Amino acid sequence: MKAVGVIVEYNPFHNGHFHHLNETRQKTDADCLIAVMSGNFLQRGEPAIVSKWARAKMALAAGVDVVIELPYAFAVQAAEQFAHGAVQLLAAIGCQELCFGSESGEISAFLSAAKTWLEQKETFDSLIRTGLARGQSFPKAAAEAWQKFGAAPLDLSKPNNVLGFAYVKAIWQNKLAMMPRTIPRLAAGYHDESFSHPSIASATSLRKTLRQTGRLESIAAYVPPAALEQLRQYRETYGRFHDWEVYFPLLKYRLLTATEADLRRIAGVEEGIEHRLKQHIAHAETFAAFIAAVKTKRYTWTRLQRLCAHVLTNFTKEEQAKAANPTYIRLLGMSEAGRRYLKQVKKSAALPLVARASKLNGDSLYEQEKRAAAVYAAAFPEPLYSAALKEEYATAPIYVSGIERK
Amino acid sequence: MKAVGVIVEYNPFHNGHFHHLNETRQKTDADCLIAVMSGNFLQRGEPAIVSKWARAKMALAAGVDVVIELPYAFAVQAAEQFAHGAVQLLAAIGCQELCFGSESGEISAFLSAAKTWLEQKETFDSLIRTGLARGQSFPKAAAEAWQKFGAAPLDLSKPNNVLGFAYVKAIWQNKLAMMPRTIPRLAAGYHDESFSHPSIASATSLRKTLRQTGRLESIAAYVPPAALEQLRQYRETYGRFHDWEVYFPLLKYRLLTATEADLRRIAGVEEGIEHRLKQHIAHAETFAAFIAAVKTKRYTWTRLQRLCAHVLTNFTKEEQAKAANPTYIRLLGMSEAGRRYLKQVKKSAALPLVARASKLNGDSLYEQEKRAAAVYAAAFPEPLYSAALKEEYATAPIYVSGIERK
Repeated sequence: MKAVGVIVEYNPFHNGHFHHLNETRQKTDADCLIAVMSGNFLQRGEPAIVSKWARAKMALAAGVDVVIELPYAFAVQAAEQFAHGAVQLLAAIGCQELCFGSESGEISAFLSAAKTWLEQKETFDSLIRTGLARGQSFPKAAAEAWQKFGAAPLDLSKPNNVLGFAYVKAIWQNKLAMMPRTIPRLAAGYHDESFSHPSIASATSLRKTLRQTGRLESIAAYVPPAALEQLRQYRETYGRFHDWEVYFPLLKYRLLTATEADLRRIAGVEEGIEHRLKQHIAHAETFAAFIAAVKTKRYTWTRLQRLCAHVLTNFTKEEQAKAANPTYIRLLGMSEAGRRYLKQVKKSAALPLVARASKLNGDSLYEQEKRAAAVYAAAFPEPLYSAALKEEYATAPIYVSGIERK
Repeated sequence: MKAVGVIVEYNPFHNGHFHHLNETRQKTDADCLIAVMSGNFLQRGEPAIVSKWARAKMALAAGVDVVIELPYAFAVQAAEQFAHGAVQLLAAIGCQELCFGSESGEISAFLSAAKTWLEQKETFDSLIRTGLARGQSFPKAAAEAWQKFGAAPLDLSKPNNVLGFAYVKAIWQNKLAMMPRTIPRLAAGYHDESFSHPSIASATSLRKTLRQTGRLESIAAYVPPAALEQLRQYRETYGRFHDWEVYFPLLKYRLLTATEADLRRIAGVEEGIEHRLKQHIAHAETFAAFIAAVKTKRYTWTRLQRLCAHVLTNFTKEEQAKAANPTYIRLLGMSEAGRRYLKQVKKSAALPLVARASKLNGDSLYEQEKRAAAVYAAAFPEPLYSAALKEEYATAPIYVSGIERK
């Protein structure tokens, strides 16, 4: 069976994702589509709109055969570390290809950019360090570094291109036997918050619309019915969707009661940002107002969101330094084909395949995952808080048979 | 002017407290009654039902002339450390006498008990250590130690006697020029939860009744009208009273995201209790159910409540060890007579008299106080959360003129 990997967040799943899955299956002739997915917190430091289980169901309903979890220590990270964890998991479970979305859909630009970067690694590293020392953000420093080599072979101001570039680099640096491919994205820029296409819109714009209208029908044109139904069920069960504002009281409590020394132990707290956090938190009444007050040229919104996620989950520099590579493959869900595939690779997979989270107790990556789940569940009043925690610890991988999938 | 001290929590102020103040003034001929009062968290590890400001107003309305704050590091402690901080503050501000309530109202029994204890200190310490090593709680070990000396000269199963005994010991051990006196309490045992007297009931029973009925009228017979009015205004402004259940989601979040190593740094976390805390927190849906599950012979309800307060406020063993003595006298409120008295002792007081909390920034006892205030304010949604925080940092001492007091 040929397995092909995708790297996803599905926050929430929408028609663009559906298009990517269909194209991927068709172009690669995959027998088994494997998605590595962020858990409760996402790459840009945000809580996922609904739980990993609900999002795994959306993925399965749309044709994914196996959903595995990207551990927190890789999920809530800048592109390089995120890519490093994700491609290793896909390779470990036996994917022969990785297929990501990009603006152009031309893999050659990614290969050429990665080649230049890796060949000139020292120069790039040194240029970026100089930029950072001058107070630039990482993306800004990287963009200036590219200018020294003439323009980059691809537009690295586009978040999807940055990720694709990181995937290719990570595959090569880890010498993985997995071929990178790319498929052009349909319409809608990643950050677009307005609708311009009749059926395609970015996850960002969908979350915004949902937040503003509170009505699922307002996004129905852009989301497959099965995913919409998951959103509906989730809100019915838990009473709400997740966003940063839900967690702001916890963040405020934690920032006010942690000492500056405590904060300096947290991953991402560098260069005295702990003073700014402490300085602005007492007066801030919303997460958005807080981040706006703390934001600097160097500390971008995304970087601050990630840092705040680490404050909430108590994810330390020490833990980040130790999280070199994934240590397990956690299954969140599978189809009939997925189950056949897993049976086939169970023995040969490069990392242990784990269905029951209880088997992971004590594994440091999973202990971090449990803490992230504890934060995530704190969005709910009891008894839902306890119920959501139990879901993290005790849910068996979701199985969707062919008939259920239709 | 003759100043006399009382040590109070006023949680809430009731007719028994009023009786004690009137008796104190009459028996001691005091010109200035000074109350040292716990702040946001109390001796038994509970959040105060209303803020320190509201409780200071109750005190002033009832005849107290000066209200000063017992810092968190002394307030949320077993009797000895609580007494140590409180008597030092009263002595530092020039109180010639300390007057506490007791069951018998006989000071001789307290003096005799304290004398025996201090003369036989090594024997007592060794007997108590032995008891603790056998898994006894501190009160149980102390009671058994007394039996070796025949019975104790006073009933140390009564919380008020335990505190009075600790006050006398602390005065002697610190060689303070302050005379201890006691006045008999009126009816109602400290822990009584049922009403038996037409106008006197314990603070515990009043909180319980208020929690059950939600109606201020249900406690009106037991609380002076001015105190009742403070309660009414507080609930009108902040929408609620405080109890442990309000803080349970924060406690749960913190216990789930702190590592066991983090918890071992917290004051009061000893002998592996961190495992029990971790073990029971995920399933607990209320604070009461949680404590009931964690409780052991050695870890009494009160000890666990204090420990949980320290978890919430991030109060560490290191901080506890450093909190040897009060470092300032923080004014919460004063009457006209109080103001005259303060003017008189301003220069001679053994510790700096501080009206504006902003002057205390950086003082470690006050930094702990700010953290306790941050936890306390987390009971409210925004914008009340920020408003309550500001109240801690920026409120000037309450001044009540003679006319206002009537």
